[in-house]
Amino acid sequence: YLSCDPYLRSRMSGNDEPSHVPDFVQGEVLTTLGVSKVVESGHQDYKPGDLVWGMTGCEEYTLITDLQSHFKINHPELPLSYYTGVLGMPGLTAYVGFFDVAKPKKGEYVFVSAASGAVGQLVGQLAKISGCYVVGSAGSDEKVNLLKTKFGFDDAFNYKKEQDLDATLKRCFPEGIDIYFENVGGAMLDAVLLNMRLHGRVSVCGLISQYNLEQSEGVRNLFCIITKRIRMEGFIVTDHYGSYRKFEEEMAGYLKEGKITYVEDVAEGIESFPTALIGLFYGRNIGKQLVVVARE
Amino acid sequence: YLSCDPYLRSRMSGNDEPSHVPDFVQGEVLTTLGVSKVVESGHQDYKPGDLVWGMTGCEEYTLITDLQSHFKINHPELPLSYYTGVLGMPGLTAYVGFFDVAKPKKGEYVFVSAASGAVGQLVGQLAKISGCYVVGSAGSDEKVNLLKTKFGFDDAFNYKKEQDLDATLKRCFPEGIDIYFENVGGAMLDAVLLNMRLHGRVSVCGLISQYNLEQSEGVRNLFCIITKRIRMEGFIVTDHYGSYRKFEEEMAGYLKEGKITYVEDVAEGIESFPTALIGLFYGRNIGKQLVVVARE
Repeated sequence: YLSCDPYLRSRMSGNDEPSHVPDFVQGEVLTTLGVSKVVESGHQDYKPGDLVWGMTGCEEYTLITDLQSHFKINHPELPLSYYTGVLGMPGLTAYVGFFDVAKPKKGEYVFVSAASGAVGQLVGQLAKISGCYVVGSAGSDEKVNLLKTKFGFDDAFNYKKEQDLDATLKRCFPEGIDIYFENVGGAMLDAVLLNMRLHGRVSVCGLISQYNLEQSEGVRNLFCIITKRIRMEGFIVTDHYGSYRKFEEEMAGYLKEGKITYVEDVAEGIESFPTALIGLFYGRNIGKQLVVVARE
Repeated sequence: YLSCDPYLRSRMSGNDEPSHVPDFVQGEVLTTLGVSKVVESGHQDYKPGDLVWGMTGCEEYTLITDLQSHFKINHPELPLSYYTGVLGMPGLTAYVGFFDVAKPKKGEYVFVSAASGAVGQLVGQLAKISGCYVVGSAGSDEKVNLLKTKFGFDDAFNYKKEQDLDATLKRCFPEGIDIYFENVGGAMLDAVLLNMRLHGRVSVCGLISQYNLEQSEGVRNLFCIITKRIRMEGFIVTDHYGSYRKFEEEMAGYLKEGKITYVEDVAEGIESFPTALIGLFYGRNIGKQLVVVARE
């Protein structure tokens, strides 16, 4: 299974800014996170048949030489594809971005954008488990319906149908927002800043609305950061890989107990990878986008 | 002594956003922070001759009914006007914004904008006391000279003479910036974001470049918050008045030992208050702007 994630876009930007992941190199095999079965191994800790997840080539067979960011799969009784999502990088992203960065308290008001995506759907459910009130935004009525019926969000809206995001947020959060889990950026962030509560927190995970623009949209309401004493903090999940095992056990438990549910959008065959990746930026996927290279 | 501070501008905005200070009311006496001597008192803790600082009317004699945000002056041996600045609200602002919000470590790279102002000159000196490398920006060569010679900044530049703030910051901070003490906003913030180091902190104290604009400039480089794991946090000094006494003793000590020096821009007479306040937004003041109503 290969994972399609928005951050891959930044590996094609070709600018010389220090980025969190190295650019793709033309002519070389693209890499992405994936789930693999060991076929042959020259490493004492790995033997044929072992299941692992980590950075892999977008190819049917790949040679893994750097095992620093690979993890053995401890719960093969759960769907293996989950290790591209709820039990892999997006799952840990939701977990550390919500608990470690946003530091939620019971009863707080939480807003999640791109809420039906790989990370968003989990943030919403973790927020509900934590006793928060949760609203999500998404880009279609079908996704909004998913948020309300399948993921247990308290409310949700289709941002493409809203004329005035500030008014929408005031309707959904008459008391204001304590935590914004930021996946999109741009106009949504500007509207959120106007609606944050005192001492609110913005956990900045992604800004997908901006990745395909020549120049980012400007965010104008930063003065609210002062008046509302807002903490806005970015994070990168790879800094938190040390928490992975603790997370994996906790999340596997939630999945088995039915406390968390996960929706995937599965594209068939390695040849579907480019289309599936591009689709993320048009919101074509419903749930976590992944590609099946081969089934067990 | 009456204090002229940038935040007073937001009390004239007339918008319905929750702000950190209430709007001025037309026809009523303006209020600002000031240093006063008690002439008459109906309160057991205050007697004629006592010196206090806190929110006061912009008038020669004022009736203070709310003593919640008034402090008796413990160091009358220092210039009383200092209680509008280095020993008052701007001093505490620099102190909590630098130590409590930015959480500096020895050897870190610190950038301060509006660095010769009431708050900036202190942030720079506190950063030097903490063993940091400090660069400041200001709007005239005279101010830049003051930063380098009087306040002990390691380097400083006149932002009005720089064509490309990104290039300027790269020149001043080849290793990047760990802490940005933000007083101005707009284009400066955008350039700083490009030059922050991993796990950098932006302590958001003010955005004076934006206060007189019809619409704020957009900030476009927020993606750096993710790639560099930046924490950007706003604060309001009134939340930290509980730390005042500890701060007052520490700062009075620094002043007496000559470890901190303070520059004031003193306007004579209450009638100069409006001009002095407006001057802040044109950078006419050199150092802390205050108005003398009467001398001892």
